[in-house]
Amino acid sequence: MNTTSFFSDMLQSITDRGRRLLSLGPVQDGDADAVGTMEELCETLLSSRGEASGMALAKNILDRWEAFDQQRRRDFMAVLLSRFGPNIERLERAIEAYRTDPSPKALLELSEAAEPRRQELVRRLNLAPNGTATLVGMREILLALKNDNPDLEAVDADFAHLFGSWFNRGFLVLRPISWSTPADILEKIIRYEAVHHIGGWDELRRRLAPEDRRCFAFFHPQLVDDPLIFVEVALTREIPTSIADLLKEDRAPIRAADATTAVFYSISNCQEGLRGISFGNFLIKQVVEDLRRELPRLDSFATLSPVPGFADWLLRERAAETSDALTPTDRAELAVLDEPDWADRPEAAAGVRSAVTAAAAWYFLRARNRNGRPLDPVARFHLGNGARLERINFLADRSGRAMRQAHGVMVNYLYKLEDIETNHEAFASRGEVVAAPAVRRLVPADRGPRAPAAGRLPAKGEPHDAARKQGSKEFTS
Amino acid sequence: MNTTSFFSDMLQSITDRGRRLLSLGPVQDGDADAVGTMEELCETLLSSRGEASGMALAKNILDRWEAFDQQRRRDFMAVLLSRFGPNIERLERAIEAYRTDPSPKALLELSEAAEPRRQELVRRLNLAPNGTATLVGMREILLALKNDNPDLEAVDADFAHLFGSWFNRGFLVLRPISWSTPADILEKIIRYEAVHHIGGWDELRRRLAPEDRRCFAFFHPQLVDDPLIFVEVALTREIPTSIADLLKEDRAPIRAADATTAVFYSISNCQEGLRGISFGNFLIKQVVEDLRRELPRLDSFATLSPVPGFADWLLRERAAETSDALTPTDRAELAVLDEPDWADRPEAAAGVRSAVTAAAAWYFLRARNRNGRPLDPVARFHLGNGARLERINFLADRSGRAMRQAHGVMVNYLYKLEDIETNHEAFASRGEVVAAPAVRRLVPADRGPRAPAAGRLPAKGEPHDAARKQGSKEFTS
Amino acid sequence: MNTTSFFSDMLQSITDRGRRLLSLGPVQDGDADAVGTMEELCETLLSSRGEASGMALAKNILDRWEAFDQQRRRDFMAVLLSRFGPNIERLERAIEAYRTDPSPKALLELSEAAEPRRQELVRRLNLAPNGTATLVGMREILLALKNDNPDLEAVDADFAHLFGSWFNRGFLVLRPISWSTPADILEKIIRYEAVHHIGGWDELRRRLAPEDRRCFAFFHPQLVDDPLIFVEVALTREIPTSIADLLKEDRAPIRAADATTAVFYSISNCQEGLRGISFGNFLIKQVVEDLRRELPRLDSFATLSPVPGFADWLLRERAAETSDALTPTDRAELAVLDEPDWADRPEAAAGVRSAVTAAAAWYFLRARNRNGRPLDPVARFHLGNGARLERINFLADRSGRAMRQAHGVMVNYLYKLEDIETNHEAFASRGEVVAAPAVRRLVPADRGPRAPAAGRLPAKGEPHDAARKQGSKEFTS
Amino acid sequence: MNTTSFFSDMLQSITDRGRRLLSLGPVQDGDADAVGTMEELCETLLSSRGEASGMALAKNILDRWEAFDQQRRRDFMAVLLSRFGPNIERLERAIEAYRTDPSPKALLELSEAAEPRRQELVRRLNLAPNGTATLVGMREILLALKNDNPDLEAVDADFAHLFGSWFNRGFLVLRPISWSTPADILEKIIRYEAVHHIGGWDELRRRLAPEDRRCFAFFHPQLVDDPLIFVEVALTREIPTSIADLLKEDRAPIRAADATTAVFYSISNCQEGLRGISFGNFLIKQVVEDLRRELPRLDSFATLSPVPGFADWLLRERAAETSDALTPTDRAELAVLDEPDWADRPEAAAGVRSAVTAAAAWYFLRARNRNGRPLDPVARFHLGNGARLERINFLADRSGRAMRQAHGVMVNYLYKLEDIETNHEAFASRGEVVAAPAVRRLVPADRGPRAPAAGRLPAKGEPHDAARKQGSKEFTS
Repeated sequence: MNTTSFFSDMLQSITDRGRRLLSLGPVQDGDADAVGTMEELCETLLSSRGEASGMALAKNILDRWEAFDQQRRRDFMAVLLSRFGPNIERLERAIEAYRTDPSPKALLELSEAAEPRRQELVRRLNLAPNGTATLVGMREILLALKNDNPDLEAVDADFAHLFGSWFNRGFLVLRPISWSTPADILEKIIRYEAVHHIGGWDELRRRLAPEDRRCFAFFHPQLVDDPLIFVEVALTREIPTSIADLLKEDRAPIRAADATTAVFYSISNCQEGLRGISFGNFLIKQVVEDLRRELPRLDSFATLSPVPGFADWLLRERAAETSDALTPTDRAELAVLDEPDWADRPEAAAGVRSAVTAAAAWYFLRARNRNGRPLDPVARFHLGNGARLERINFLADRSGRAMRQAHGVMVNYLYKLEDIETNHEAFASRGEVVAAPAVRRLVPADRGPRAPAAGRLPAKGEPHDAARKQGSKEFTS
Repeated sequence: MNTTSFFSDMLQSITDRGRRLLSLGPVQDGDADAVGTMEELCETLLSSRGEASGMALAKNILDRWEAFDQQRRRDFMAVLLSRFGPNIERLERAIEAYRTDPSPKALLELSEAAEPRRQELVRRLNLAPNGTATLVGMREILLALKNDNPDLEAVDADFAHLFGSWFNRGFLVLRPISWSTPADILEKIIRYEAVHHIGGWDELRRRLAPEDRRCFAFFHPQLVDDPLIFVEVALTREIPTSIADLLKEDRAPIRAADATTAVFYSISNCQEGLRGISFGNFLIKQVVEDLRRELPRLDSFATLSPVPGFADWLLRERAAETSDALTPTDRAELAVLDEPDWADRPEAAAGVRSAVTAAAAWYFLRARNRNGRPLDPVARFHLGNGARLERINFLADRSGRAMRQAHGVMVNYLYKLEDIETNHEAFASRGEVVAAPAVRRLVPADRGPRAPAAGRLPAKGEPHDAARKQGSKEFTS
Repeated sequence: MNTTSFFSDMLQSITDRGRRLLSLGPVQDGDADAVGTMEELCETLLSSRGEASGMALAKNILDRWEAFDQQRRRDFMAVLLSRFGPNIERLERAIEAYRTDPSPKALLELSEAAEPRRQELVRRLNLAPNGTATLVGMREILLALKNDNPDLEAVDADFAHLFGSWFNRGFLVLRPISWSTPADILEKIIRYEAVHHIGGWDELRRRLAPEDRRCFAFFHPQLVDDPLIFVEVALTREIPTSIADLLKEDRAPIRAADATTAVFYSISNCQEGLRGISFGNFLIKQVVEDLRRELPRLDSFATLSPVPGFADWLLRERAAETSDALTPTDRAELAVLDEPDWADRPEAAAGVRSAVTAAAAWYFLRARNRNGRPLDPVARFHLGNGARLERINFLADRSGRAMRQAHGVMVNYLYKLEDIETNHEAFASRGEVVAAPAVRRLVPADRGPRAPAAGRLPAKGEPHDAARKQGSKEFTS
Repeated sequence: MNTTSFFSDMLQSITDRGRRLLSLGPVQDGDADAVGTMEELCETLLSSRGEASGMALAKNILDRWEAFDQQRRRDFMAVLLSRFGPNIERLERAIEAYRTDPSPKALLELSEAAEPRRQELVRRLNLAPNGTATLVGMREILLALKNDNPDLEAVDADFAHLFGSWFNRGFLVLRPISWSTPADILEKIIRYEAVHHIGGWDELRRRLAPEDRRCFAFFHPQLVDDPLIFVEVALTREIPTSIADLLKEDRAPIRAADATTAVFYSISNCQEGLRGISFGNFLIKQVVEDLRRELPRLDSFATLSPVPGFADWLLRERAAETSDALTPTDRAELAVLDEPDWADRPEAAAGVRSAVTAAAAWYFLRARNRNGRPLDPVARFHLGNGARLERINFLADRSGRAMRQAHGVMVNYLYKLEDIETNHEAFASRGEVVAAPAVRRLVPADRGPRAPAAGRLPAKGEPHDAARKQGSKEFTS
């Protein structure tokens, strides 16, 4: 806002001469070739000419983008794909030179020539006031368009590459979110909460104001009022077994200084346009660190997490002709899950408890996706961070969604400082799921494969890519 | 600082197991293979294993770097060059695949494969607390090492590439520097001032406190107390002809509201490790914008700038057998410049005035470097920004340095909003130096080539590269 | 909080020796003579002994006060009245000395001797952390107790005297309240709003977030999160005639820059304990000033205000045997007001409009209290500030309260800069109500007294005292 | 600044009508009766009329005051004395009423009537922007004028009374002063330092930047850039015996975490206009508290303090015919002090050491002023705060001033938390100087009076009054 007049003045001078120099014309609704004009503007921005008027040009391009309808946006993305890749001629020359003499210099030229021109374009678009936020929004749309046009993956790769650099943890700021946080930010916390719905301001207050509740978010300096990811924490005296206990309205808070356990009961990503850029890992560790310093009596850091893939998997297992996971007795007992109100009938619930818990243990410890990784995306996240699977909680969340996704099951992951790296290592290099003995005992050693199938393990990043592809904001805890 | 205990705890757990897993050992003065250990640590940081303990690892690596002596630093840079370039095997495969079928997918894989692994390494090192500042310092050393080992250009290209992205103007914050700025920042202003030496706090006060003086700096959110570049501004009623008038101790300040002219009389880059990353262009334009909003009566924005290359050029011309630039009369008159005290003798000064001024005009308007650009780096900066050369000021700076570099000549560049892009365009695409008529008249139309030589014009970036290579903090204004 | 350990340590040392020195004992529920202990502590605080441990002692006393039940609070206030007035002996001596020789020195001693010891006591209690807030709360209770014990007026006078000094406008800070204000402050805005009820956070958002809405509050540096008074402002293109128009959910905001009128539609005092300390006058003028600077096109500053005393007065007039205010026709027409739903019947409303409006005009222009002032407290406030009565709006507020208090009437007061002092002067010294011609015309010149009765005019402060005694937070706008 | 236009507009409207209403006329140099105009303006400000335009009137009055020359200021103060005391008529009535019936109501009226009208006047002057600072400056001048006109004591008493209330510790904010404090504040630290001169910015840096150095100041919210009092602290491993050790340029800082002792080596009052308003007591205790929290290993809090009255006293004792303080041997040995360079001659210094130290001990323990208090103002300050006299340091400060005032002697006062109140009590009620045994042993029990003379002890406040009257900024530590 504060640079408007300068930009509009400069832009005026550009577009006035535009008729001579660039034949761009002003922004017009009726511009039959609006996307063509955009392409020209982007070329100008990339040219040396773009240096003097870079901010004004970048602003103009982003303003046009914001005004584009869906079709023009699609067309512009296609232009980015086809016209702003690497300079092919230069690339061919660089390959040739490198093949002739693979000197450091030739290699440098090759790597520079192979970089798509889109990357520099996006960097220059970032000159515009509020450019970063607009570009994050642009990628959100790009992700949606990619579903219909897989070739746009190349464009998305460039955005993801730059965002990975710009939103490097080194540039993020952790800020506590409390009841004295500005309302416009709190409003976003309500909107972005993806795990346990916040019904309104009173409920938000109950999650933020009591002294045994905390919330932390990562912010980027350029997106000042907009959190990137946040985690809600309950300070307790033991690891909880159900979400209702944590969230009930009339509970009596404990003194923060008396707490021994910090429970991460909700983690939500906020920016769809930053999908796949990993913050959660750093967020949890930083919060653990900050809480330990403030409250030295805390000695246990755990989650209370959903199990979003369990019900789907169980359905498939029950439908399959044979299943290592389920004994015939299990199958018989699990039939009650098909009755809508089983959870409300104590004896029905009691009857199915053991079969559900055992199946869940199998789901975590043995079930694997094509990459040899656990099926559950939340499990992949926490295990990949070095947590261990601590406990399976039967009927821990009776909300509609949790009943549908997981028959009410929740689990605790435990973050134990001295084991984090060993756990991570076991998971990352051998695909091993580290679990508490009580969980491991739920899976008979003599049944089925001692997963993972000794096949290939995925390359770095794949688990996260998988979670990313789920496209869900609610990926964790 | 605030994450120390967590990092040291985690690191302890890493290094303890280090004997088993990585055989790294703790940081030791006597480590015979300290650089080899660093290489291993860097590989670990790049591996999937590095995800769980990335911040701790990054901190450990940067701590080791800080403790390295000059020889180890040199060796480590050589390792970065030889071992952290692109994965050659993957690159060869990608080239092959691209040649076979130049699909978007193959192109994407090629551009990813061609990216040196150093880039991801540096991004991950940035995870460490205070990582950005340490990396900027690392590049400062790298730039020095490059003088002896030109192959390090490939390593430097990666740093420069990332810094260009991280220090994008979109991420910078403009802050006024005033007499109520914290002393630790002001101390740096004194230290970094590269154009007109600041003798101490009293002189600093005279440049900041009066209401007709301003100073602005760009900061990066990660380098909070350390400016990147700053400009000092005098508010006046006319474009000044000498620096002494601006800086004299006993001058009477005018009311800011009465000023009509803003004079940028000193611009200094602060971070040697960010050499070649361009901020000055944006700084000047943003300051123009901010000042116009605060003081609507301002209608003229100009510099009072040094001419660092003039004396050298003039020496060469005078030594040359023939010179288009100088007539025999000029040569005769200029002889007085060889007398040490000519400037203090009024009649000597008066006698040489016209010849010096004419030579300076030629120097700006006709003299060219190999790339067809003006010889003067400050001229290249301001002309490249779209300013015009407004006036040549004889004996405008009698300081020792200015007398040595430019026989006391200073010039004014004028930033006129409505001409900025035209000027830039003329300079960027045709190499034309836009100058006021009074300056142009100093160069006889009928003598010498109507520069630039119609040869090739430099590719984008070259003028700045040239300035960059000068390695001088004092490059501008 | 941050001084707890020091205070408790010091206090420990005090109370330990307490057995010897002061026989105070620790704070005990079962202290039979808790109020007696308080008295001793207060004496100690006033003594020289109190200097070394003032903060600790003050904190101890205020903690005890907070823990007191209603009876003990009453008793403590009685102690303040009876034991902490002026030192009578010293006062008698001072009177004697003054009568003997009325020298400046004797006068000084007299004025010091006449100051109740309570004042110094309250000043020293203010040493405690959070002391100011606790003392404001103490006066809130004192005001309630005063109803039963009018002698406490002397105690209250000391609190009021000190608060008048401490909450001097020179110490207050005006802060805008917006949708990015911390939630804990906004929560108080909802709670304190006393004129037009705020139904919840969504309604609050509608009053704060649109660009044609503003809110401003005075804060005191010692009560950081707690506003003292706030005003809600609508930016419009004309002076509004009904509150519903301003507050309706689906209205389209205008651009702030297009507004010509600022409407103060709600002013609420927040701290009952500061009753009678006048902020509203300064608040309005400061907000006018700030808005004019931000939005130079604003040329009209008006209120949309309730008329809380109108219905009561009208009832009395209608009940009276004779009334100058009402003609027989008026009386007949006004009868419809006794029917509960008259406002919803258009013809009934149309029929009574003129009589209500005329009666309201009489109520403002002619009706007077014993002090010769207008009956309406809101009128006294704005007229005392120098506003003029601009317009009477029939059925401008159909809320239950407004219908009960004023038959739906609201009025606009106009703040016209160049008339403020003349208006104030007319009102303050001659009791004259400045009103727009259209309002004045509603009162026949030839009927009843040309008020005010030429009797005595009240001394300074009386109008405000009257408003104060109403004890209402909703006193204004 | 931000309220200028409003005030000037309003003022215009006041002064325009001034010809009619008040006959004030604008501010004019040539106003023959400028002080009379001021009196009228002050009366207006106190009248009900002043309510509407209070801020503008207050600003106008203070602007006039600032423009007054010395004579007019003197005259204006005389007007404050003679015309703005209590309303005598009202006071006489109130005395009469109180004598007739000493009811609470009569007492209240008496105490209100006895309050000089000046107090309300000063409160209203505080409405002006920057009013508090101007009033503090006004009192500074008043204090100087009081020397010539003791009757102004009555005026000063009102200022002091109000400032005591406004600058109550409850309203002060403690802020650390460090090398990252704004330069305009640091500049004031240099200027206000009254104990150990700060030679410039480099020396200031040495006192602020090292991690074993601290500085803290009290600020008032209305005087944002101007400290009220500050203390400089050295963190050490033992109580120091000389100032040179603390301040030498080339000392090696210790780690803050290793320090066991905090040494308050300089305390300076900043605002002459707040003379007699006591902050030092609270400052020291708050700093002790803050340092203990930050550095739990600190277990000793002491000063290194000057002894400003020692040399004068010693001179008198040596000149006296008889002296309990000095034996004939002492007198003989002390003769060397009359030689200018004795301190630089080791054997001379060694020879006088014991006599000087013994005399200093006597000076502290036995010498008393008329009020039975120690002669030394710094001693009165620290002993009154509850410190004890810990050690006498011979030749601890060789600066010219310290040699002149105290023959180079400095002392340590020790703040021991658990003894503070006992010490204070002993001093305040019995005039007893608490000193370490080693100090007490320096004074023979069998010689001279076991001071204090058992005569009357001063009433509360007197010691401070005494210090106040010294008028020195350097009163402490």
